Amino acid sequence: MNNKIGIGLLGLGTVGTGVANIVKSPDGRHPLVSKIELTRIAVRDIERSRDIELDQSILTDDPFEVVKDPNVQIVVEAIGGIEPAKSLILLAISLGKSVVTANKAVIARHGKEISEAANNAGVYVLIEAAVGGGIPIIEPLKQSLGGNRIRKITGIINGTTNYILSQMAKEDANYQDVLKEAQNLGYAEANPTADVDGHDAADKISILSGLAFGGSIDREGISTKGISTLESIEINYARQLGYEIKLLAIAENLSINATTAIKSIPLGLRVEPTFVPKEHPLSVVNGVNNAILIEGDPIGEVMFYGPGAGAGATASAVVADILNIGGIMLMQKEDKTLDPLLSSNSWRDCFLANAREIEHKNYVRLITVDTPGVIGKIGNVFGKNNVSIQSIVQFDSSHAGAEIIVITHKVSKGQIEDSLSEIEHLEEVIQIAAHLSCL
Amino acid sequence: MNNKIGIGLLGLGTVGTGVANIVKSPDGRHPLVSKIELTRIAVRDIERSRDIELDQSILTDDPFEVVKDPNVQIVVEAIGGIEPAKSLILLAISLGKSVVTANKAVIARHGKEISEAANNAGVYVLIEAAVGGGIPIIEPLKQSLGGNRIRKITGIINGTTNYILSQMAKEDANYQDVLKEAQNLGYAEANPTADVDGHDAADKISILSGLAFGGSIDREGISTKGISTLESIEINYARQLGYEIKLLAIAENLSINATTAIKSIPLGLRVEPTFVPKEHPLSVVNGVNNAILIEGDPIGEVMFYGPGAGAGATASAVVADILNIGGIMLMQKEDKTLDPLLSSNSWRDCFLANAREIEHKNYVRLITVDTPGVIGKIGNVFGKNNVSIQSIVQFDSSHAGAEIIVITHKVSKGQIEDSLSEIEHLEEVIQIAAHLSCL
Ligand SMILES: NC(=O)c1ccc[n+]([C@@H]2O[C@H](COP(=O)([O-])OP(=O)(O)OC[C@H]3O[C@@H](n4cnc5c(N)ncnc54)[C@H](OP(=O)(O)O)[C@@H]3O)[C@@H](O)[C@H]2O)c1
Ligand SMILES: NC(=O)c1ccc[n+]([C@@H]2O[C@H](COP(=O)([O-])OP(=O)(O)OC[C@H]3O[C@@H](n4cnc5c(N)ncnc54)[C@H](OP(=O)(O)O)[C@@H]3O)[C@@H](O)[C@H]2O)c1
Repeated sequence: MNNKIGIGLLGLGTVGTGVANIVKSPDGRHPLVSKIELTRIAVRDIERSRDIELDQSILTDDPFEVVKDPNVQIVVEAIGGIEPAKSLILLAISLGKSVVTANKAVIARHGKEISEAANNAGVYVLIEAAVGGGIPIIEPLKQSLGGNRIRKITGIINGTTNYILSQMAKEDANYQDVLKEAQNLGYAEANPTADVDGHDAADKISILSGLAFGGSIDREGISTKGISTLESIEINYARQLGYEIKLLAIAENLSINATTAIKSIPLGLRVEPTFVPKEHPLSVVNGVNNAILIEGDPIGEVMFYGPGAGAGATASAVVADILNIGGIMLMQKEDKTLDPLLSSNSWRDCFLANAREIEHKNYVRLITVDTPGVIGKIGNVFGKNNVSIQSIVQFDSSHAGAEIIVITHKVSKGQIEDSLSEIEHLEEVIQIAAHLSCL
Repeated sequence: MNNKIGIGLLGLGTVGTGVANIVKSPDGRHPLVSKIELTRIAVRDIERSRDIELDQSILTDDPFEVVKDPNVQIVVEAIGGIEPAKSLILLAISLGKSVVTANKAVIARHGKEISEAANNAGVYVLIEAAVGGGIPIIEPLKQSLGGNRIRKITGIINGTTNYILSQMAKEDANYQDVLKEAQNLGYAEANPTADVDGHDAADKISILSGLAFGGSIDREGISTKGISTLESIEINYARQLGYEIKLLAIAENLSINATTAIKSIPLGLRVEPTFVPKEHPLSVVNGVNNAILIEGDPIGEVMFYGPGAGAGATASAVVADILNIGGIMLMQKEDKTLDPLLSSNSWRDCFLANAREIEHKNYVRLITVDTPGVIGKIGNVFGKNNVSIQSIVQFDSSHAGAEIIVITHKVSKGQIEDSLSEIEHLEEVIQIAAHLSCL
């Protein structure tokens, strides 16, 4: 064996090709890149012509063979989906090989099993590319923010939906038209469900939450709303009121003000289109870019911003993970003890709190009959439920009747829901046309 | 000895106290924090009363004693300045102890000597807090971006000057008044020279440059302009033209388009007040915040944003470094081989290119006599020097004469300087009132 680090690359699509391009031209990059060698590569279709020059003999259509190859020291999984990705990752671990993956779907659903297996086997499973594309966010959470008590993570972590929302705002266009444009440009998939319905963002926020708060939660329990039912009228009102609408993924520690160290930490996690004030740093994140804002004690607020997807950006993150593992291999010849920061065990219990306990501001748009006392009646219901109102404005409406926009102060989801179900039954109220959270 | 990691803390001022506060309340932080123990602390004045409860017996006024204490495994230097900081760091290294420091002044000037000593001794010198306060930027550069060829770093990395410029813009106030206000608020020191003249930012960009490009340059050769002579009229014109003025620190690889791997890399480094277009992500970074934008291939652009100073933020970065070293100590019992990413050797030669080769856009404000042909004459000089002009506008002037604002396209500093020295001699030109770079 030479002193190169042998990589088994599973998949040679967008991400895999990006990785291969970096490895094949190490000049000007960190010198460790020149120690990386593409030993075997698995694809589905060996015959397909590809945009990259490679020694054909290292290609195979059997990814398991790649994992088992004794010259492969690190397995890079860039196939995607749950299976065979999960089995391949677990096989690599069982063979004592560290894994790098960009696969948020498998990590969000099976991350606990995978990381327990990795810790038992004394190997790493690194996932920098799984969230935020090229943006360094996993490693900063693991290594640079460990001195903090993290309070909250607020992220724009799905490029497709951010592109769609940015275009809808910029061009005053409707959802369907922009989606089609995004699909033509390659920013949205033919089947865009995972993105536009918020599932991809939910996968990612569950991963970030596990790292930030030290324990995993039930992925399926994350309250998830997408953008496919968002009307352009909301984007217009948002702008008039000084906001942008962004699909935010939020994870927060709901016990942060508890004075004693509590055993199990209640977390609020949600993905939803949200009113973001124009002066907030996330409001200027446009197009396919991603950004993640982290609030912690004592650091305050830090934000990480950059390209959330794409071959080059994602490959940059995958190669970072390879270098990390490679660096440790060079430094640690015999000993197999894991770095406690990089290996990221969970270190406390977390659970999803009842979503009704999460607090935030709200935007509510009501269609009402156009009679004098209606604002008063609505105000009374909010008052009775202790919902304090920041503004209540009647807009000219194209509908029959009046259009009333309410912005509340911070209240619990429970309070606002209770208020709205009462308001819905007021005889003057025709419809609760929209209800969104505000930052 | 117990299985705690013994810290010798040098200095208990803003940063030292912040670190002690984190270490004394580990609950809710990464579990490794609870393994850190403050073994000895050095201060100048033992008698002074302090805002933090500490076992008085661990205090001493002899920092060398702290470094030598056999129970101290990691030395945290938070005294500042060149001496005794430098000698203390070198002593720690010679005793086989890793060092964490927030001291950009000593690293910018003696970083090469210090890191060579550390690499020879098999210890780490980590400096996350030296640039960007709490923002994770050193570690991402070392570990997360290694797959990239870095093209350029553009940073707002001095909080004092960013606060002053933000206030000048927001309140239409002049430099002296805002400086006084900043001093009262604790955002500027009594002697503000290092900040307002750009030297602190130059220290920091030289550190970032060394990490990004893999080789150190002559710190004293960095072209450095501060903000103390900036007139409020420039801020006004900037806003009218769609810009904000920021003190930027920029480092760029001037050979990035060279196709072959060249031996020694020419870098352009500069610190100067710069026109930043309003749509640029750095233009919205206000107050004492810092932000660093990194451009690389293949990642594209990533930006790191957050609090550039302050006890909590800086301590967060110092503790991150302690955890990194502590994690490695726990994983590596006998072997002393260094992690090649964290230890950061320089890996190629870099040199400061002639500043005249750096290319950028320019803002030039001229006071001229108010005769018809003057714009034509100025345009001719620029044309002769191949300086392409984006806009040339005559403004109403309160001065005698006319005020002409020129924005150029991207040209070399040499070309613009040659043009300006010709223009200065035109008989219609009374004065070159201002010349600043634009992004
Ligand atoms: N694209 C991005 O910007 C991005 C960003 C972040 C994370 N990710 C994640 O990265 C992963 C890969 O994404 P991608 O965009 O690179 O996907 P992709 O372009 O569809 O590529 C998938 C690759 O896997 C190969 N493959 C599929 N099934 C296989 C099997 N059973 N055996 C062997 N090879 C198989 C395909 O082979 P053929 O080439 O022969 O079809 C193809 O090369 C996913 O988990 C994705 O979520 C992607
Ligand atoms: N403050 C920030 O926000 C910030 C941000 C980034 C980086 N930094 C860097 O962090 C370092 C420390 O800054 P700081 O703001 O914490 O400084 P500081 O508040 O002035 O504290 C300096 C500390 O060092 C002690 N000290 C000074 N000379 C000493 C000596 N010869 N022997 C023993 N102790 C000595 C002082 O003791 P007494 O308490 O007895 O006077 C004091 O506790 C500097 O390198 C600075 O550039 C600071």
